[in-house]
Amino acid sequence: VKNIAVMLSGCGVYDGSEIHEAVLTLLAIEQAGAKYRCFAPNINQHHVINHLTGEVMAKEQRNVLVESARIARGDVEDLTEFYIDEFDALIVPGGFGAAKNLSDFAINAEAFKVNEQVMTVCQAFVKANKPAGYMCIAPVMIPLIYGENAQATIGHDVGIVKALIDVGLAHRDCAVDDIVVDTRRKLVSTPAYMLATTLTEAANGINKLVARVIKMMD
Amino acid sequence: VKNIAVMLSGCGVYDGSEIHEAVLTLLAIEQAGAKYRCFAPNINQHHVINHLTGEVMAKEQRNVLVESARIARGDVEDLTEFYIDEFDALIVPGGFGAAKNLSDFAINAEAFKVNEQVMTVCQAFVKANKPAGYMCIAPVMIPLIYGENAQATIGHDVGIVKALIDVGLAHRDCAVDDIVVDTRRKLVSTPAYMLATTLTEAANGINKLVARVIKMMD
Repeated sequence: VKNIAVMLSGCGVYDGSEIHEAVLTLLAIEQAGAKYRCFAPNINQHHVINHLTGEVMAKEQRNVLVESARIARGDVEDLTEFYIDEFDALIVPGGFGAAKNLSDFAINAEAFKVNEQVMTVCQAFVKANKPAGYMCIAPVMIPLIYGENAQATIGHDVGIVKALIDVGLAHRDCAVDDIVVDTRRKLVSTPAYMLATTLTEAANGINKLVARVIKMMD
Repeated sequence: VKNIAVMLSGCGVYDGSEIHEAVLTLLAIEQAGAKYRCFAPNINQHHVINHLTGEVMAKEQRNVLVESARIARGDVEDLTEFYIDEFDALIVPGGFGAAKNLSDFAINAEAFKVNEQVMTVCQAFVKANKPAGYMCIAPVMIPLIYGENAQATIGHDVGIVKALIDVGLAHRDCAVDDIVVDTRRKLVSTPAYMLATTLTEAANGINKLVARVIKMMD
C-alpha cells in the first residue's frame, strides 16, 4: 500500500487549510486504495480570521498543528516527526494557510520564504525523486522548493502569477477541473478554489491530482 | 431545484460539527443536483477542545456561527434568519457540537434539552411535513423534536442508546454505511462517525441519507 503525507496549515480557508480541499484530498487518497498521514508545523498561525466577517481577530492566537487536528480528527503529526522513507508522495492542500503559515507569500510576496521545517519536508520529496501534488494557493511554494522553471498552475490572478514568474515559476494556465503536470519533476498542481465555485469543480481537479500523483509512484 | 438547509454546530468533531461529515454532506447535496444553505446558531460554544490532545482549552471561547463559517467558506447564516418556506429539507451533520451546542446531551444526558432556536427550526420541518436527515450523534435530538416512537439510529453505544430509549426513541441498529428511515415522519438517520473508521464508510451512509432525503421531497 502506498503512503501519502498530507501537509496541513490550519483549519479554514482564510487562515489555514481550505477545509473542502483537505477533506476531498483525504477521501480521494482513501478511495484510490492508498493511505495517508497528516502533518502540520507546530507553530502559531500568522493570524486568526473571523470567517463570517473576514476580519482579523486581533486578540486570538491559534497553533497550526492544533487547528489542523480538527480536519484530521486528532490524527495529525508534528512536521518534525516526518521521515521521508515512510512515504511515497506528498500532497499539500490549499487555503491561505499555505501562504500565511507554511510560507509568508500573502504577507511579503516580493521576498517571501517557505517555513524552514516545511521546506525540509517538501525538498525531501524532491531529493528522493518522489512525486508531490500542490493545489490552490499552495503552488506559491513551488519555485522556492523546486528551483527555476518548474511547471505549475496557480489560477488566473495576474498579480500572483507575475510574482511567481518573477521567482522562476513556469506558470501554466489550467481549467478549474484539470491538472498541470511537470513530468520530469514528478510535480502535479490544480487550481481548486483559486478558480472553483463549487465543491464538484474542486473535487474533479483534486481527484485528477491524487490519481496522477499515485500513478507517478509506480 | 430543491433547497436543503444544513445545520452546523461549529468546526471540529470534539466541540463542533464533524468536518468530514459536513463536507461530505455538502458534496452529496451538490452532486445530487440540489442546493444547500448553511445555518448555525449565533451562540458561544459549550467549550473549546484541543483536537490534538483532547483537552479542554479553558481560556478559549469561540462562537458556533463564526466557527461554522470555516466549513462553509464564510457562507453561513444565523439560525434566526431561517424561513421554512425557502427550504425543502433539513440535514444535520454530527460531531459533538450537536450534543454540546445544538443540545446539551453530552453534558446532561438524563435531562437534556435542545437549544430553543435549533428546536424552532427543526420542528418547522416536522410541522411542514418536510423531510430531514440526522447523522452521527445528531439523532440525540430526534426524540425531543419528533416526540415518542420516532425511529432512528445512534450507533452502538449502550449508554447513549439507553438514554434515548428512555426519552422515547424507537432505536434501530444500523450498519455503518446504511440508513434508518422513518417513512411516516420523513426522517432519515445514519451512524456516520458513531461507527465509521474511514471516510469511505461515512461517505457511503451520508450519500444514502442525502439521496433518500431528496427522494422524500417528491
